[in-house]
Amino acid sequence: MQDVTAGTGGTTGSGSVATDETDRLIASNKVEGTAVYDRQGERLGTVYNFMVDKRSGQVAYAVMSFGGFLGVGGSYHPLPWRALTYDTDKGGYVVDLDKDRLRGAPSYAESETPNWGDPAYGRRIDDYYGSAL
Amino acid sequence: MQDVTAGTGGTTGSGSVATDETDRLIASNKVEGTAVYDRQGERLGTVYNFMVDKRSGQVAYAVMSFGGFLGVGGSYHPLPWRALTYDTDKGGYVVDLDKDRLRGAPSYAESETPNWGDPAYGRRIDDYYGSAL
Repeated sequence: MQDVTAGTGGTTGSGSVATDETDRLIASNKVEGTAVYDRQGERLGTVYNFMVDKRSGQVAYAVMSFGGFLGVGGSYHPLPWRALTYDTDKGGYVVDLDKDRLRGAPSYAESETPNWGDPAYGRRIDDYYGSAL
Repeated sequence: MQDVTAGTGGTTGSGSVATDETDRLIASNKVEGTAVYDRQGERLGTVYNFMVDKRSGQVAYAVMSFGGFLGVGGSYHPLPWRALTYDTDKGGYVVDLDKDRLRGAPSYAESETPNWGDPAYGRRIDDYYGSAL
């Protein structure tokens, strides 16, 4: 069905998987909603969406949805894209972050609108995670 | 509301726009559904989704939906991401392609599943558009 190389796992299965995910590529609407785990394998939340640089086509930030998980109600935590490692066995992303680090991270409530237009907003995210990743 | 530089246009407006689009960044779920125009300003279709390289985070292909437009029923046409130029005035993407070129391009019906897992599939797309872009 598809050209899965040995050891990648996770991408076998139904025809729809062949459409929206391979060893190398993943469809944007499949990334949205994909689970995020910590290093211990605990499910932290899901990817809500991600921010793409219009000019370069490079994904800059993944916005995580931690619905109530951290005791702060539904909230979104933007993370630098490089913080996410795709684990084909889990079928989700793994981040090397613990809950305390996420609790103190830049975030916004569902009702809020972050100012992505202000370069300082992105820098604040980069700075927060910079030393940890 | 946001840090829009002069001459970019199009990104002014409601709070929701501030959330999902700026001069530089655009949210993944905003790209999906965004209109695509030809150089003459004619609306060709919309972006259905896009394929992201899991390792590099680089957007590789945009999958266009030309619902019945080309006389072939609902179909998806994958294009190299570099073929799309974002036009903030139009609030959509512009491609330097005419209908004939799109008619002959690699495409698949809604019921079909392209084999993204086969590197030859991507190469076929790259080769088709390579000389035109």
